[in-house]
Amino acid sequence: MDMHHHATAAIISIGDELTLGQTLDTNSKWLSDQLVTMGIVPVEHVTVPDDLDAHVATLLRLANKVDVIVCSGGLGPTQDDLTRDALAKAMGDTLIEDPIALSQVEAWYTSRGRVMSANNRLQALRPTRGLVMQNLHGTAPGIAGRIGNCDVFCLPGPPKEMFPMFEQGVVPRLRLQAGRTMMTRVLHTFGVAESDLAMRLGDLMKRDANPLVGTTASGGVVSIRMRYEGSLTPIEAGQVLDSVERTCRDVAGQFIFGSEKETLASVVVGMLRAQKQTLGTVESCTGGLLGAYLTEIPGSSAAFIGGLVTYTNELKTQLAHLDAANFAEGGPGAVSRETASAMAMGGLRTLGCDHAIAITGIAGPDGGSAAKPVGLVYIARASRSDSEVDVRGFKMIGDRQNVREWSARTAMAMLWQKLSGLPSVRMLREA
Amino acid sequence: MDMHHHATAAIISIGDELTLGQTLDTNSKWLSDQLVTMGIVPVEHVTVPDDLDAHVATLLRLANKVDVIVCSGGLGPTQDDLTRDALAKAMGDTLIEDPIALSQVEAWYTSRGRVMSANNRLQALRPTRGLVMQNLHGTAPGIAGRIGNCDVFCLPGPPKEMFPMFEQGVVPRLRLQAGRTMMTRVLHTFGVAESDLAMRLGDLMKRDANPLVGTTASGGVVSIRMRYEGSLTPIEAGQVLDSVERTCRDVAGQFIFGSEKETLASVVVGMLRAQKQTLGTVESCTGGLLGAYLTEIPGSSAAFIGGLVTYTNELKTQLAHLDAANFAEGGPGAVSRETASAMAMGGLRTLGCDHAIAITGIAGPDGGSAAKPVGLVYIARASRSDSEVDVRGFKMIGDRQNVREWSARTAMAMLWQKLSGLPSVRMLREA
Repeated sequence: MDMHHHATAAIISIGDELTLGQTLDTNSKWLSDQLVTMGIVPVEHVTVPDDLDAHVATLLRLANKVDVIVCSGGLGPTQDDLTRDALAKAMGDTLIEDPIALSQVEAWYTSRGRVMSANNRLQALRPTRGLVMQNLHGTAPGIAGRIGNCDVFCLPGPPKEMFPMFEQGVVPRLRLQAGRTMMTRVLHTFGVAESDLAMRLGDLMKRDANPLVGTTASGGVVSIRMRYEGSLTPIEAGQVLDSVERTCRDVAGQFIFGSEKETLASVVVGMLRAQKQTLGTVESCTGGLLGAYLTEIPGSSAAFIGGLVTYTNELKTQLAHLDAANFAEGGPGAVSRETASAMAMGGLRTLGCDHAIAITGIAGPDGGSAAKPVGLVYIARASRSDSEVDVRGFKMIGDRQNVREWSARTAMAMLWQKLSGLPSVRMLREA
Repeated sequence: MDMHHHATAAIISIGDELTLGQTLDTNSKWLSDQLVTMGIVPVEHVTVPDDLDAHVATLLRLANKVDVIVCSGGLGPTQDDLTRDALAKAMGDTLIEDPIALSQVEAWYTSRGRVMSANNRLQALRPTRGLVMQNLHGTAPGIAGRIGNCDVFCLPGPPKEMFPMFEQGVVPRLRLQAGRTMMTRVLHTFGVAESDLAMRLGDLMKRDANPLVGTTASGGVVSIRMRYEGSLTPIEAGQVLDSVERTCRDVAGQFIFGSEKETLASVVVGMLRAQKQTLGTVESCTGGLLGAYLTEIPGSSAAFIGGLVTYTNELKTQLAHLDAANFAEGGPGAVSRETASAMAMGGLRTLGCDHAIAITGIAGPDGGSAAKPVGLVYIARASRSDSEVDVRGFKMIGDRQNVREWSARTAMAMLWQKLSGLPSVRMLREA
């Protein structure tokens, strides 16, 4: 990649809690990812404390080096929020109160039946040559300014305020390169190891290929990212990406559950809705996490009817109608193929749904044994249309939260296999 | 804060996958946290790509500013691993092969029945005036060097190699400042706005105060962070922080649920265990998220017994024994004070627990009306020992996920108010 043909960017995160290691900065990664998809190359991330001089010096240094700076943090209503002052100083400008921003901050409080405190008035300040960007999800407005030839965007620190402001306020203002096409595509897999996927993709992943194909893994989802950059028209570039996508589907189609912004939950909920089928859950070690993932999806109520969180053996017996003999001396026990299967069958009956998924396992850190170690998880899917329950054992790895998250995702992937009608394949970590 | 009396540090992370936003940097946070506990103040984090000039320029700039630089990444065996070269260049030095490092890399392969590739020989290079640090968990040795008056430590990027090398190779070599103390403390609140909390804290938050007091907000939890730096002994510094903490508790104690690494879930589960009480949940719009939060805590099974996810009205009637009249024409409806209260009472009976929490609301984006807008949520707590149910209405803000997360946390805060025995106070967003 020839950096000199691209717009470049730097990202600044502001806050003592970041430099002192109390809070993990996730904004810089997210912003970089967004900028890259627009063909703008981030060349440096910097984190500075709540210190005016450090922030000003960093702004001035980077403004000489890159085309765009995106800052996050330091726009709150308290005395240690200094981004407004730093931007004004770096611009050689002073702060004035923006009447529209002030009315928006006031309206934010009024609409919630509250009164704006005097401190919040600080949030309506901007450099005289700066522009305010409205915050639809919090009180801190963003500010756009310019230092020399560098565009600077100052966004609030909380991701839930920063993400939408970037999309609504920054993206339309970024000047994209003329005469170059940059196009990306992403496919998502579950149940296959990243190294196995890389072997299947083979030469597609060569470092000098265009489109460039790479993989990234997060929480069990391994994504195939394709990026074309060059002089083709957008239509031609789309055809090139289509061809690469077909090859990916040829070699790994049985693991590809979705693309772009789709998630296992959004895909499964969408398929259930399209097939007019309903789903219920019976969760033990995940404690409700599977239900939480499914109901993240707007409109999930058309497919997900509810569930049982049977954390104790007593509730497994009482709510999912398991035979108490499962838990007696010599029985298979709470974490077993038999119990998972009976939980799914019990869920199908009790909840009255078309499909029921059950999860039982040992999330750790305690509760493991030589015969049933931490990470052992059984997942079962029962469907009204099937005479047999699909029940599988897994050896999950990582800490308590890893085991729980991976289990909930695996459960959705098992349902996806059923709903997709594809032949059922053995998944990563299946014992 | 007078930085000049402290050893200061900067942290550099190296890698295209970081600057391009493909991988989240967690090393900088971890290293900062470690340095702070040793009284060394990190004043800047920088992330640079696999680019020799950028790395050299950053090393030289920061070496003029801080006492210690810790780098992670860029020590692998491939051509884009340039940290060795960058360090040598910044030191005005050249690279030589270290025979001990070479034998350690070779031994690492031999002990695993593998043969070292020619590429790995690169990993035994160090500046002539540098020192090699052994890697007990991977092939890349670390390097310690010095640029001017600044100590520089270059560590491998993978956390599983970096953490132990920092502890074994770097910590013993850090020259600690004599006669200086650095001590931090953090308290967590829920249910109070950050600006309201700042007003309560008043002069405590002045920028020149010592201990310095600041607030940070994340998902409704507003944390009060205190930091003392100065010449007091650790015991004296602890007393000063005790005094500040007492003031915080005087002005905001009814919102302070925990400190340091505690979360609402860990505190509530801990209190339930200490009081030998059990908890069950009945969730509608949160779909299992409350149960998922509670069961994140190891050992939660001693207090949390399980729950009902009653996403449909039919399941509310069937599982939580609500009167179907609730949902009939002219009834209060699924999202109402009456339904929340009945869900909590139903949970108490069905699940057989000491406390039951129920949540019903409109998470959006669809499903709202003028009378019942998106964000309207009712939360109820029923306790076996109480004749009355604590039921409250809230107007949550933000998107679907915000409404759900805030609702689940508010439910835990309502239970915390009950378990703490403090007078129940009105919380932020309570209608």
